[in-house]
Amino acid sequence: MDTQKESLRLHKEWGGKIEVNTRVPVRNSQDLSLAYTPGVAAPCLAIQENPDLSYELTRRHNLVAVITDGSAVLGLGDIGPEAGMPVMEGKCCLFKAFGDVDAFPLCIRSKDVDEIIRTVALLAGSFGGINLEDIAAPRCFEIEQRLTEICDIPIFHDDQHGTAIVAGAALINALKVVGKEIGDLKIVISGAGAAGIAIARHLLHMGAGPRMYLTNRKGIIRAGQEGLSPAQAEICELTNLERAGGNLKDAMAGADVFLGVSGPGLVSGDMVKAMAKGAILFPMANPTPEIFPEEALASGAKVVGTGRSDFDNQINNVLAFPGIFRGALDVRASRINEPMHMAASHAIASLVSPEELSPGYIIPHAFDKRVGPAVAKAVAQAARDSGVARK
Amino acid sequence: MDTQKESLRLHKEWGGKIEVNTRVPVRNSQDLSLAYTPGVAAPCLAIQENPDLSYELTRRHNLVAVITDGSAVLGLGDIGPEAGMPVMEGKCCLFKAFGDVDAFPLCIRSKDVDEIIRTVALLAGSFGGINLEDIAAPRCFEIEQRLTEICDIPIFHDDQHGTAIVAGAALINALKVVGKEIGDLKIVISGAGAAGIAIARHLLHMGAGPRMYLTNRKGIIRAGQEGLSPAQAEICELTNLERAGGNLKDAMAGADVFLGVSGPGLVSGDMVKAMAKGAILFPMANPTPEIFPEEALASGAKVVGTGRSDFDNQINNVLAFPGIFRGALDVRASRINEPMHMAASHAIASLVSPEELSPGYIIPHAFDKRVGPAVAKAVAQAARDSGVARK
Repeated sequence: MDTQKESLRLHKEWGGKIEVNTRVPVRNSQDLSLAYTPGVAAPCLAIQENPDLSYELTRRHNLVAVITDGSAVLGLGDIGPEAGMPVMEGKCCLFKAFGDVDAFPLCIRSKDVDEIIRTVALLAGSFGGINLEDIAAPRCFEIEQRLTEICDIPIFHDDQHGTAIVAGAALINALKVVGKEIGDLKIVISGAGAAGIAIARHLLHMGAGPRMYLTNRKGIIRAGQEGLSPAQAEICELTNLERAGGNLKDAMAGADVFLGVSGPGLVSGDMVKAMAKGAILFPMANPTPEIFPEEALASGAKVVGTGRSDFDNQINNVLAFPGIFRGALDVRASRINEPMHMAASHAIASLVSPEELSPGYIIPHAFDKRVGPAVAKAVAQAARDSGVARK
Repeated sequence: MDTQKESLRLHKEWGGKIEVNTRVPVRNSQDLSLAYTPGVAAPCLAIQENPDLSYELTRRHNLVAVITDGSAVLGLGDIGPEAGMPVMEGKCCLFKAFGDVDAFPLCIRSKDVDEIIRTVALLAGSFGGINLEDIAAPRCFEIEQRLTEICDIPIFHDDQHGTAIVAGAALINALKVVGKEIGDLKIVISGAGAAGIAIARHLLHMGAGPRMYLTNRKGIIRAGQEGLSPAQAEICELTNLERAGGNLKDAMAGADVFLGVSGPGLVSGDMVKAMAKGAILFPMANPTPEIFPEEALASGAKVVGTGRSDFDNQINNVLAFPGIFRGALDVRASRINEPMHMAASHAIASLVSPEELSPGYIIPHAFDKRVGPAVAKAVAQAARDSGVARK
């Protein structure tokens, strides 16, 4: 089956992947008088009195906006807001199927940071959370950060944190397989955009040391280098403290862990051979990874995970975002903070029992029904413990 | 039953009146690869190539945003965006139940005209149409007008046009009952805000002459008067050409038709007695009309319609907006213009057959299942005839 062709055919047949339905009966005048005028005045006035009641008297308690500017859609790049919509609708389907979260897609016709921020902020009263999606670096960092400051609901950029959380979960278990500690690792991250930087930050929070090297097309990024974005400059203060230069191959010599969020085929078997013993590789570029699992394993890698469902150890964001928002909504969290990210990584990792753990099974399958609830529970608890839960 | 109390109880029980559902299966990896990555790249690229395909490959073809700033919600006034949400959700339920239109509520946290316009315009690519709701006059006029100019999808402020269209439909049939022609009438409109001005404009389009008098708290409005909004000044150029002053009572002396979109109890039996023979009254203030039907009829009125479902001749917007958007979406109209408004009025009126027509039955019931399809068909045809249909 040609997946692209079949998907296009199905999208025509579907005529939209989401639908807005009514949850209440509208059969007669009495129904109308309760769901609409005149009865609806009562919940309106109750919310006017106490805006928090919007979480009880409207759908807000279960509602997330999936928002993009269409600037970094899949690997397709800046294809614009309308063209990004099939991905956003798909994301909303996953929110519902994996987290029982109502998610609604909004594609903003602007690439201006201030305008995107203002638009989202003005809509924040209609939602319980905001999932930013496929917004290009570096502006995704500023958009997320400023929205987190001004909004009273959780803001989560899945391309950053979702990937980091799931890769973090996979790493927790991969380290058990190879018998290493996170603090001892030399880590290489290929890709210094939104996902790469978020992974680096998350691994630092998880206890990784500064022997971490992010690379882009020009090679290893380092403090003081020209042309760094603010987010890159910031991560360079916490990693690669010796300001090493060189290319990806140089970086990988002696490395324990490789994480790829870059492009197809960037890693060769020889580069894997030059890594430390018990090497872990997560080449997550989609659909073509930085190196295929077969070649990496043949070159001495011990554990390999990719973004694809047709290989072992799929590192798939769907393991994280539905449960994260489910948990955040359940306790009406005001934000999704680092302790919640961390809790999600550990919850995902914990579902692989010591007996099951093996190089070919370090992370639950995307359709493992335990994942969503386990992540939601851990994230809700972390929200409570970190003081951002509001119920 | 205390409707307000019961409605509040039900809103708590419902936990939201709308829901976002998935229309596609998400059961296994193959489903995911077709509805989401990697297959979804195909519809994305197809839309990038031809943005019009967003109407075929996403839900846009059936999707309307119900947007408010919460500034004129029901008769409650400016209660704010969160507090307006129960009404907006209710409206979305009616869109679905009466027009099979997916409608999604957005409450904007701003009262600034430019900001509201910009926000809606930036989101226009995600929807097939915009229903503005409960936005206060006079800014609702500017917002609707400027959005109509800059957006490529229909913009419709229901508080203006919905009311005007349904009142117009009722008037068409009421005139048959009393045997008068629209061009000969003296018409009084109590209320010179969004709805009152829209009614006046619509009746002029329907063939009413300039013997039309809009009144507000200060009395009859007239050209040259101080403190008129631009929209009021404009309608004063087309009505009350003699620049009559006086109060509502003065206006009603000798009038053939009274339309009320103002406040409770403003019209007395004596005022009705002073109207012309065969007087028609539509006191539409909710929940308490300008005059109750019983008193109006006892004072000599021939036909009376109100906004309430518990009296004859309910003039209810639900007769118009679902079918109007259904028709507009069906032909992918670029706007909802005056010919479409007119077609809707006539379609609604036409459903009352000459045999059925009586002073107590001039307009179909809200739950008459013929209304939505009849309005949709007429509106679609009017869109085609007036050159705004795009398919």
